[in-house]
Amino acid sequence: MKQISIYDTTLRDGTQAEEISLSTADKIRIAGKLDALGVDYIEGGWPGSNETDRSFFQEIRQYDLSHSRIAAFGSTCNPKGRAADDANLRALVEAEPDAVTLFGKTWDLHVTEALRVSLERNLDIISDSISHMCAHAPEVFFDAEHFFDGYRKNPDYALACLRHAHEAGAKVLVLCDTNGGSLPFEVREIVQTVRAALPEAQLGIHTHNDSETAVANAVEAVFAGAVQVQGTINGFGERCGNANLCSIIPNLELKSGGRFRCLPEGRLKLLTSTSQFVSELCNLRPFMRQPYVGKSAFAHKGGVHVSAVLRNPETYEHVRPELVGNEQRVLLSDLSGRSNILFMAKKYGYALDKNDSAVLDLLDEVKTRESQGYEYSTAEASFELMFFKAMGWSKRYFHLINFNVVDSMREGFTEPYAEATVMLKVGGMVEHTAATGQGQVNALDVALRKALTPFYPTLGEMRLEDFKVRVLHGVMRDSGGTASVVRVLIESADATDRWTTVGVHYDVIHASWQALVDSINYKLFKDDPKKFPVGGKHFPQSEPK
Amino acid sequence: MKQISIYDTTLRDGTQAEEISLSTADKIRIAGKLDALGVDYIEGGWPGSNETDRSFFQEIRQYDLSHSRIAAFGSTCNPKGRAADDANLRALVEAEPDAVTLFGKTWDLHVTEALRVSLERNLDIISDSISHMCAHAPEVFFDAEHFFDGYRKNPDYALACLRHAHEAGAKVLVLCDTNGGSLPFEVREIVQTVRAALPEAQLGIHTHNDSETAVANAVEAVFAGAVQVQGTINGFGERCGNANLCSIIPNLELKSGGRFRCLPEGRLKLLTSTSQFVSELCNLRPFMRQPYVGKSAFAHKGGVHVSAVLRNPETYEHVRPELVGNEQRVLLSDLSGRSNILFMAKKYGYALDKNDSAVLDLLDEVKTRESQGYEYSTAEASFELMFFKAMGWSKRYFHLINFNVVDSMREGFTEPYAEATVMLKVGGMVEHTAATGQGQVNALDVALRKALTPFYPTLGEMRLEDFKVRVLHGVMRDSGGTASVVRVLIESADATDRWTTVGVHYDVIHASWQALVDSINYKLFKDDPKKFPVGGKHFPQSEPK
Repeated sequence: MKQISIYDTTLRDGTQAEEISLSTADKIRIAGKLDALGVDYIEGGWPGSNETDRSFFQEIRQYDLSHSRIAAFGSTCNPKGRAADDANLRALVEAEPDAVTLFGKTWDLHVTEALRVSLERNLDIISDSISHMCAHAPEVFFDAEHFFDGYRKNPDYALACLRHAHEAGAKVLVLCDTNGGSLPFEVREIVQTVRAALPEAQLGIHTHNDSETAVANAVEAVFAGAVQVQGTINGFGERCGNANLCSIIPNLELKSGGRFRCLPEGRLKLLTSTSQFVSELCNLRPFMRQPYVGKSAFAHKGGVHVSAVLRNPETYEHVRPELVGNEQRVLLSDLSGRSNILFMAKKYGYALDKNDSAVLDLLDEVKTRESQGYEYSTAEASFELMFFKAMGWSKRYFHLINFNVVDSMREGFTEPYAEATVMLKVGGMVEHTAATGQGQVNALDVALRKALTPFYPTLGEMRLEDFKVRVLHGVMRDSGGTASVVRVLIESADATDRWTTVGVHYDVIHASWQALVDSINYKLFKDDPKKFPVGGKHFPQSEPK
Repeated sequence: MKQISIYDTTLRDGTQAEEISLSTADKIRIAGKLDALGVDYIEGGWPGSNETDRSFFQEIRQYDLSHSRIAAFGSTCNPKGRAADDANLRALVEAEPDAVTLFGKTWDLHVTEALRVSLERNLDIISDSISHMCAHAPEVFFDAEHFFDGYRKNPDYALACLRHAHEAGAKVLVLCDTNGGSLPFEVREIVQTVRAALPEAQLGIHTHNDSETAVANAVEAVFAGAVQVQGTINGFGERCGNANLCSIIPNLELKSGGRFRCLPEGRLKLLTSTSQFVSELCNLRPFMRQPYVGKSAFAHKGGVHVSAVLRNPETYEHVRPELVGNEQRVLLSDLSGRSNILFMAKKYGYALDKNDSAVLDLLDEVKTRESQGYEYSTAEASFELMFFKAMGWSKRYFHLINFNVVDSMREGFTEPYAEATVMLKVGGMVEHTAATGQGQVNALDVALRKALTPFYPTLGEMRLEDFKVRVLHGVMRDSGGTASVVRVLIESADATDRWTTVGVHYDVIHASWQALVDSINYKLFKDDPKKFPVGGKHFPQSEPK
């Protein structure tokens, strides 16, 4: 089995993505996750280019990484000077990384148009920079920028650049498809040709996704002999992104017939959680359709697929989701059939018949509510409440009488003032409370819990973890204003569980109210010792987990 | 030049995606766009499976399509009966499509596990169904479900299935990678083998993206001889999606050295607008990093890239964005340098020096505000206001004194009550108005315009088109509530222009207020005949466009 070296550049090339910006603390946390995943190299940044990157290298030295080596990125020396006097190269050495990656020009157009030097001078720059760096850093890699474009235009020159880097001591020559324009067959052919021309050199591959073939290009390069793959978690990166390590790694480990290994034994199953962690720190909504690690990657919607996949997962799943730490999901949706409801019922401990009228009623209700914008595949707690209601559970923990929220801005004040009042009945008692908050939804949440906690002390253990707002209809109403329908998802947690609830309304406060009420009801329901209807129509077949 | 037939299945396979659900009216509108783009086939749905799909076929007959043919999708006949008596096949015929695509089993596991019939019986089913349909429909295609998995397990049987479909009259044999598990080299080899085994048959390719290689797989299949490509706009589809036509089409048209053509002459430039239209109707936020058509596809952030790409686009762009109807963008971001500010200045008619103190101040302000959550690459109108302020424009069209919003729910009422009051000064006059609305932001918008329109009648032409809310920090504040920072983007339009503004605050009302105020200021500014500072420090070099 051949070991492929995984070189992660999320912290450098990944942060070039349009919506991403990371602090030093974020970068340190991501580096910890990458080390746990077991990538061989973590490229921390370009110490010569900015303060955040410089401080990362200082900080990361305080950490004991178990597996990964830290790489620093930089350019070959300034064309006007020598490597020995170059400030950028000095910054790389001072960062004290375990490895240095220098990028250099290999496309004649870039040499003359961007660097504005002769082709000959660029070869000197490469030799001078690489050999200087080899004397000052433990390992040196050469990123051959625009290699594939350069090779297509002037193959002899592109190869000459590689040869100079190799002879100057670069450990790996990394062929970069910087503009992402290459197709898999071109990458395969060019990697094969380069291998034949430089048989003693080790090759790496660095691709971008502008043709939507970055993963395929990297995989083809490895099958053609490359030993190092550069990419990013989730394919984050400038323009269309870099090669996505979350797809390349399982493609190589699970689909090469045992030919390649990328991560230490047992780490592949950390892939999904690593992907989610990085999305979260980058503050990007995870891409649901992302292969292997996305929330939809093993989600089944069509009724026919669902019944087949429940019998035998191989029928509609290319790999077992557990291998990459993901899980199979069955979606509750307007396209779904009764088998999806039965799947959920079973999860809650009920073995129902598909012709049970409760199943049909529930399916009807799900379809109606989804057409209004409710979304139960995420908000499973809201579905669970509906499900148990359909099973005969009718207890109401409290009853709303009124609520009122106010938000105002006054001249001379820099902060807005938000206040909520809530009037509700618990058993026979009327509670009327008020609270202020950071925004109205927060004020409403505080007031609601203030009213209920005396009756239900376990609400004190519960916390609201996340709050998502989505405008469902992109277009305004005819009334000519900002009145769209919004969906609010609230994620809550206590010491043992984590649950999501949903609300939909044109008024964001009312959508939030629905989700808040479901969340509190779910907490009270799950803690309720009398949870199951006695003498009702439906009984659970086993205790729900 | 070889014509590749493009078969779009957005309306059928695309709607299997987790978050997508389309009405008949939506489907008709998308079909119109696909016809304008010039795809050869539009698969409208599965008429035997549900009412929406059936009504699509009735409705679409009322439209004159200029190029596309309508295809209907269905299964080979029920294994317990004969094709001539099959209700599903009858529904296909009754839908009166221009073409019918029948899918059948070719993987022995599925024949015995899902259909539960003998391998021999499945061959009969294929022959019977295809030849029956050929007698009742103008064109018939055979979708060989799970072909690649089937071929790997039992190549003789998978080929026998194809041979039966071919001999029964199927015009194209479409090889489906239903589970999306295949890698490009496997697809290439298997397509080549099938071509050799069935040299007179026409082959098609239908791939899924579970290995993130759907586009590469389709492209490899075409290079290996396939003449039809099935896919969806934006790669929408179940799990990780289908092959993305928005990448396959330009890859084949722009990167085969003129070997393949997919669309009628001149249509490729409709690709970006088609992609956006479909995302919008499917109510999904467009995927920014999407190759070719995404908003980030030709966006440049790093300072080095920006200066090079402005000199020569070929340096960092694999194709010219205009070819696919997209455009180059330079991002204003905390990673960006002065060259990005200079690019925008030039757009507004100012030729500034990069050492101008106004440029440095503006860059500082952009960086500070982006770190707080503002996002100017989308909200360019908000940036433009900042820019002109930095250029010396200091006019204030109105001055806020107070505002107040109320939202309440009362027992016995089904609708919430939302009201806003606004007190502001225009010139020397104090205006104090109130309005109700569908939600508080709408009420605030109505009240604000009610106060201002008497002074600025052109505000009557303006409408708010879109309203987006995004929670920026996924995690709640320590105070334990739903107080996250939200970013509001408001898109507005009048008869000639369309602009986007931004607001950021932990209170959604206040974030909305900021974006509303910017939007109104932008409208008043752009209509203002005295827009340019006379005698100020900076003068425009030319009229801004």
